[in-house]
Amino acid sequence: MQTMSFEDTAAFLRTCEDAYILIHRSPDGDCIGAGYSLQAVLRVLGKRSKVLCADPIPQVYGFLLPETPEEDFPAKCVISVDVADENLFGALQETYAGRVDLCIDHHISNLHYAARTLLDPHAAAACEILYALYRHMGIPFTEQIAKCLYTGMATDTGCFRYDNTTPETHIYTAELMREFPGMRYAWINRQMFEVKSPARIRAEILMLERMEYALDGRCTFVWATRDVFETTGLDDKDTEGLTSLSLKPEGVEVGVTARERESGVYKVSLRSAGDVNVSEICRQFGGGGHIKAAGCLIRGTQDEVRERLTAAVEAAL
Amino acid sequence: MQTMSFEDTAAFLRTCEDAYILIHRSPDGDCIGAGYSLQAVLRVLGKRSKVLCADPIPQVYGFLLPETPEEDFPAKCVISVDVADENLFGALQETYAGRVDLCIDHHISNLHYAARTLLDPHAAAACEILYALYRHMGIPFTEQIAKCLYTGMATDTGCFRYDNTTPETHIYTAELMREFPGMRYAWINRQMFEVKSPARIRAEILMLERMEYALDGRCTFVWATRDVFETTGLDDKDTEGLTSLSLKPEGVEVGVTARERESGVYKVSLRSAGDVNVSEICRQFGGGGHIKAAGCLIRGTQDEVRERLTAAVEAAL
Repeated sequence: MQTMSFEDTAAFLRTCEDAYILIHRSPDGDCIGAGYSLQAVLRVLGKRSKVLCADPIPQVYGFLLPETPEEDFPAKCVISVDVADENLFGALQETYAGRVDLCIDHHISNLHYAARTLLDPHAAAACEILYALYRHMGIPFTEQIAKCLYTGMATDTGCFRYDNTTPETHIYTAELMREFPGMRYAWINRQMFEVKSPARIRAEILMLERMEYALDGRCTFVWATRDVFETTGLDDKDTEGLTSLSLKPEGVEVGVTARERESGVYKVSLRSAGDVNVSEICRQFGGGGHIKAAGCLIRGTQDEVRERLTAAVEAAL
Repeated sequence: MQTMSFEDTAAFLRTCEDAYILIHRSPDGDCIGAGYSLQAVLRVLGKRSKVLCADPIPQVYGFLLPETPEEDFPAKCVISVDVADENLFGALQETYAGRVDLCIDHHISNLHYAARTLLDPHAAAACEILYALYRHMGIPFTEQIAKCLYTGMATDTGCFRYDNTTPETHIYTAELMREFPGMRYAWINRQMFEVKSPARIRAEILMLERMEYALDGRCTFVWATRDVFETTGLDDKDTEGLTSLSLKPEGVEVGVTARERESGVYKVSLRSAGDVNVSEICRQFGGGGHIKAAGCLIRGTQDEVRERLTAAVEAAL
């Protein structure tokens, strides 16, 4: 349970061999960028590594995958990036729980499950920590490293919008833009934040039409029920960033997005636009996350879920 | 028609007295931030100034207005910021055309209508130029200056998303965040990019439902017709950023947003997600703007407007 400095982590990475890099299930831009940037850095150091994820990498992140995938080899070392809790390994948990040699993360909720942990809860993204680490190590950046790190920092901050954004997020981004002026930053941002599939557009229309307002409009409910998926053809994997719909209305402080996993089971995402700590609300339901964005699983009918969450949000307001 | 350096401009601002600061009609975050930051800087220099705009400042920018407005006084000097063309003064054109002593702008299409022009077409925003100018002058920043400049840079880049974003946009933002760590950047971004009025949400649903696809989906049309305003209660002033709807669909390269000014008159905004220079398309219709975002006025029926624009976009693709 060693707390690692940059020096420690650099020494570890320079001596490790044949690493498996684990990222969390339902992978997002930050863990994918972190994982594949680390693979590229280990390649620069002459080492083999593989990125492992319980779920497939969504197609929209395909541009971050290396052109030549690594061949197969057994792990001599296991590193996790952007994973606060071994639960988040998903189907890989059984194999790798208790076996992680190094964890690099930015979640304040990190459970220190790894033998060694490099944690910076003030960093906007795992990729922000990795940027500073690679610079500290004097790694020569490649375009692959740069685009992975940019994507991770941009996605975890909602393109520099959310209040987890730090001055370093901007400084590192500026340095990447100066070193790689030809990289298609705006194209990346468009893929991440703007482009929607026809089914996703249909689904957003439907969910906006049905959006519910509670507590005098200070709380909203967006329901991604099974019939939304069926009516619009929305793919289960095509839901990243869906939670932002709930915070569109003027005056809303807590936005609830409830996604029906199976009948009577809702995956609930809370976002806060004000002072409410939604991580604490989600903890009451066995979940967790960040102060302004957190999640939990609730069993019950739509009415029960609405009622329980409204009461919890009302108490927090 | 003097081209001004930072030194020239600094000398001008240090000697000018009783300035009227003109911004463009339909004011946006950049011209409002530029105008009110300059007023705050002139105040630091012990000078009186007033910001003038042909249209009212939209309520969402109210937090940029100074707490104590300037008293009335006649202009001894006229400065324009973020105004490429005297036409854009709107109702103020008649009074001030030919009378501008200094223009500070970032539009490559600037017509050099002022006696002196400080122009940097590579800057993402007028506020980016002003940031560097104020630093060059050694102005001590106040929170009012900082929030004006941040808002201008953030809004003109779509929160650092578009490809006009420069390394300097990020560096200056990081410097503002370090000097004013308590400023509510995320709150500003939420007001600028996320919060929507109920009428605006209704209008977006309606326009998305009616969105048209042309040229195999490479071109979209979003129609903000009079009936959209009437049906949804959308206010004429509540339309900033509406053009981004047109670029949501996968595969679209040119997004057209046509807003019905009066019967048979459409204010058309074009946005490019690919290589098409929409400024050139708009120039064919007597308009102009940036490579990726431009506008023009077209007279005709909805069918005629669609037909003429589709032909122009097809030729450009």
